[in-house]
Amino acid sequence: MTYITCGSRLELGCGMDHVLETSSPYETAAECNETGATVTLHIAGRAGTPIRLTKFLAYHYGTEDSGKSNAVGTSLDQAVARGFTALLAEQEENVAQFWASADVELEGDPATQQVIRWNNFQLMQASARVHGHGIGARGLTGRSYEGHYFWDTEIYVLPFLTYTAPDAARAVLKFRYDMLPQARARAVELGHRGATFPWRTINGNEASAYYAAGTAQYHINADIAYALNKYVEISGDNEFLSRYGAEILVETARFWLDLGFFSNRRKGKFCINGVTGPDEYNAVVDNNYFTNLMAQENLRLAAKVVGALDPDARARLVSRTGLEPDEVVAWTEAADRMYLPYDARLDVHPQDDSFLDKELWDFESTPEENYPLLLHYHPLNLYRAQIIKQADTLLAMFLMNGHFSADEKKRNFDYYDPITTHDSSLSVCIQSIIASEIGYSAKAIDYFNFAAAMDLSDIGGNVKHGAHVASIGGTWMALIYGFAGLRDGGGKISFRPRLPRDWDRLRFPLMIRGRRIRVSIDHEETVYRLEVGDAIEIMHEGERLRLRPHAPEARRPTTRSQPVAKPGPGAVDPAIPDDTA
Amino acid sequence: MTYITCGSRLELGCGMDHVLETSSPYETAAECNETGATVTLHIAGRAGTPIRLTKFLAYHYGTEDSGKSNAVGTSLDQAVARGFTALLAEQEENVAQFWASADVELEGDPATQQVIRWNNFQLMQASARVHGHGIGARGLTGRSYEGHYFWDTEIYVLPFLTYTAPDAARAVLKFRYDMLPQARARAVELGHRGATFPWRTINGNEASAYYAAGTAQYHINADIAYALNKYVEISGDNEFLSRYGAEILVETARFWLDLGFFSNRRKGKFCINGVTGPDEYNAVVDNNYFTNLMAQENLRLAAKVVGALDPDARARLVSRTGLEPDEVVAWTEAADRMYLPYDARLDVHPQDDSFLDKELWDFESTPEENYPLLLHYHPLNLYRAQIIKQADTLLAMFLMNGHFSADEKKRNFDYYDPITTHDSSLSVCIQSIIASEIGYSAKAIDYFNFAAAMDLSDIGGNVKHGAHVASIGGTWMALIYGFAGLRDGGGKISFRPRLPRDWDRLRFPLMIRGRRIRVSIDHEETVYRLEVGDAIEIMHEGERLRLRPHAPEARRPTTRSQPVAKPGPGAVDPAIPDDTA
Repeated sequence: MTYITCGSRLELGCGMDHVLETSSPYETAAECNETGATVTLHIAGRAGTPIRLTKFLAYHYGTEDSGKSNAVGTSLDQAVARGFTALLAEQEENVAQFWASADVELEGDPATQQVIRWNNFQLMQASARVHGHGIGARGLTGRSYEGHYFWDTEIYVLPFLTYTAPDAARAVLKFRYDMLPQARARAVELGHRGATFPWRTINGNEASAYYAAGTAQYHINADIAYALNKYVEISGDNEFLSRYGAEILVETARFWLDLGFFSNRRKGKFCINGVTGPDEYNAVVDNNYFTNLMAQENLRLAAKVVGALDPDARARLVSRTGLEPDEVVAWTEAADRMYLPYDARLDVHPQDDSFLDKELWDFESTPEENYPLLLHYHPLNLYRAQIIKQADTLLAMFLMNGHFSADEKKRNFDYYDPITTHDSSLSVCIQSIIASEIGYSAKAIDYFNFAAAMDLSDIGGNVKHGAHVASIGGTWMALIYGFAGLRDGGGKISFRPRLPRDWDRLRFPLMIRGRRIRVSIDHEETVYRLEVGDAIEIMHEGERLRLRPHAPEARRPTTRSQPVAKPGPGAVDPAIPDDTA
Repeated sequence: MTYITCGSRLELGCGMDHVLETSSPYETAAECNETGATVTLHIAGRAGTPIRLTKFLAYHYGTEDSGKSNAVGTSLDQAVARGFTALLAEQEENVAQFWASADVELEGDPATQQVIRWNNFQLMQASARVHGHGIGARGLTGRSYEGHYFWDTEIYVLPFLTYTAPDAARAVLKFRYDMLPQARARAVELGHRGATFPWRTINGNEASAYYAAGTAQYHINADIAYALNKYVEISGDNEFLSRYGAEILVETARFWLDLGFFSNRRKGKFCINGVTGPDEYNAVVDNNYFTNLMAQENLRLAAKVVGALDPDARARLVSRTGLEPDEVVAWTEAADRMYLPYDARLDVHPQDDSFLDKELWDFESTPEENYPLLLHYHPLNLYRAQIIKQADTLLAMFLMNGHFSADEKKRNFDYYDPITTHDSSLSVCIQSIIASEIGYSAKAIDYFNFAAAMDLSDIGGNVKHGAHVASIGGTWMALIYGFAGLRDGGGKISFRPRLPRDWDRLRFPLMIRGRRIRVSIDHEETVYRLEVGDAIEIMHEGERLRLRPHAPEARRPTTRSQPVAKPGPGAVDPAIPDDTA
């Protein structure tokens, strides 16, 4: 059977085959019409004589007339030829491989262990067949968001894939690369140079209906650039960079240069107006801090990668993009002169030009049942107030971690955390990571638990529409970047473990440039073990460690396990020194 | 026949009756079904014997089950009883009355005289039956905007009605008053106190689909307050004010106080964020100058009117609105502390907080066929740039004329005029008035001609969808406020005529507090004649004149007829002194 969707013209082919094993006589009849297919078996069964029916199913999909759905027959033939037992063994092997490189073990809290395993299983399911496909916002678990892909994949799911299944991470990024033609066309359509990726899509075309929280979220371009750079740094897959990544970087850098401008009124700084950041309670704003910072990184990465390409790769890139040398100069200038708002009175980075001048939200008069606010208030009321749906400036501070001191993070956390509703599932995981770093232990574990249990405990009451795949990826991040304190800027791996007091041990593997290391953290020591691959250098609490095969390195914490700190100015645990990771 | 619209549940009743006068034998048959009605006459006509058939038609409409459509039968019966000749005479009298109080005579330019008469005829048609109805954006001439009413009525059509047909002006404002229950409900729905009128409506409910250029245009509330105050000042109809107007003022003042807030970061000033001003190329902005200034006036008018009511009227108002004395204090405080942005660097009033920080529009690269821009660019591209669809800050400077020196108007005109596309039909008439005042004669006449000929010359290529009723009202304003220099702040009538050089004479009547005066302007003198009513005081070029019945006052211009001045800094005709009217 082949189906075609009305709007996006995607073709789904599905087929079924049967192997019947019986010594009883039987007849088969098959019928296929426009709405379904039926296979009828009449078996004259005899008592005591076994009947075994094995059903084989195959699905393929692709764009209309791509011919992909024709592969269903071949796949079925191959499956039948191999037989169920062989297929089962292959699946068992695949799953075992997944857990070997992805399992996060948690001792001392079996309920949370169960949640983490369930979550990671969802990630496996969602990413197992990403070659040529994206990861929908609900994976394969539900119809919410109609299977569309967002920035969630790059910012929330890719870290997990990069560190546990680099091939899958590559496939996701390759899929984005394959959408580059539509992204170029979209830029032209919007009157811009370069390429701009759709905010939500299933086939590369923009599918969002509300531009203020859709197309205006141009930051997705910088998110993709960031994620592909992270993937290359951690996997060492420079071939992907020169073959695909560089082209994405060039086209997105072009887009940013075109979208913004050098403002005379801001002393020649590069300003980007009329954008929406990750926080959808403040839409179509000027100089969103997150967007400007990430665009700066996008421009810098593009300039750096173009400069580092070998002559052949560079020639290929120039022929594919028409790149001119002065473009790279302009990107660097825009990056160097990027306007990054700072408010001296509050000593924080304003989320955007107007954010701090908005009225404070009246939380006291907001009943519990009015959350999430977007379902109960007109967007104008939300846009008019200092109210945040999800981590925005703080997400920038996590992603571009090395740009900020812990003190800066703390000041901004103290300002933004109380006005953030976490009405998006993408928020608490990030908040947990920053809270871990700045020593707000209680807040870190609270936010982690909220993120981890979102689906199994059905916190939002909406898991019937599907699992929150990005939040699950974020939960993994809260474990690894938060409690284990992983930092990986520039591909340099460091840890600063901060194990929650109620847990006994956290143990997880990471794939880094072909190695697999396993980190085991308890309250007495952290042990780093190189399980696969050659020696590699990492940092632990600022100390350089060289990991060699089969020679685990154990280190005792420099600070003792943390008492629970309440967040808020002055409430920081004084035992945790201010420090950047 | 009765029809009911699906969405807004409006009921239209229409009926037809016939009077047949003939000596020939005839038969009649009538048939009525779900989709139409037919009357068939079979007449055995004889050569030389006259047959006269008179058709009478009647229409009534109202909300569903209002019973208004039942009046069709009564109306038809009355019409038939009076007969065609009597009805015709009545219509002729009505039309003659209209022209007596509304005709604008222009000597020396017959083509423009024709345009003006055609235009004013459209205003008569659109406003002849406003009792219980509004004036749609296209009057009765076309389907564009689906018969919906906007702020156009109050700001662009009411001046004409107030000065030529005060009863019609009152009816329009009474119709707004009748929508107050829905405006109160809308405020509740949006989480605000008081009342907020719909941006577009046909039955009192908000009918705009795109909130950024709809609901966010809260300024309509202040526009209504402004127009009703103007009507009361010019007509002297204080009964309307105490009976209806005060209640509108109270509810809209409440709304403004709730919408804005006293901002600590702006030294306790009253700020209004998240609004759209008249200019729809800059949407959902903070502290739109027009909105803040008009809201200030709204708050002040409310406080003033409440304070001036007699005890009975005040008691009625309190019982209808639950008004508390400290509310009035709060309105005055908000008005006194209203934040009115000013930019010292450019010495202009910024259209809103972010406007001057936006990128300049690249006019050179914008081909002529790309106008109106809204049909060719994504809203984000428009919102991101310093590009204006229609007079906004300049409209504020016209409406609140007395707040600004001519020099201020000139500076702001010089800044805003070059970046205004006039992609709205509501723009050039206002621009013409300001240009007249600041001595940009050529610009004033160019913009006037553009406004006047919009429909007859089909400038926008869209007159097939209906006449631009508001632009027609604006054309009248450009004549009377622009070239005749009428100013009427606080109900004080003054003139400062600036007759275009190519015209010989401009002559028009105005109804002011029961009087009718007729003003005749040529290049030698201006003559003021009181045609109806008691003596009245007016100002001419700063000189006080007391007009008495049948005693015309003639004055020679203090400045000679103007040479044509080109606009732009330094290009002002030096013969025209800077001056406020």
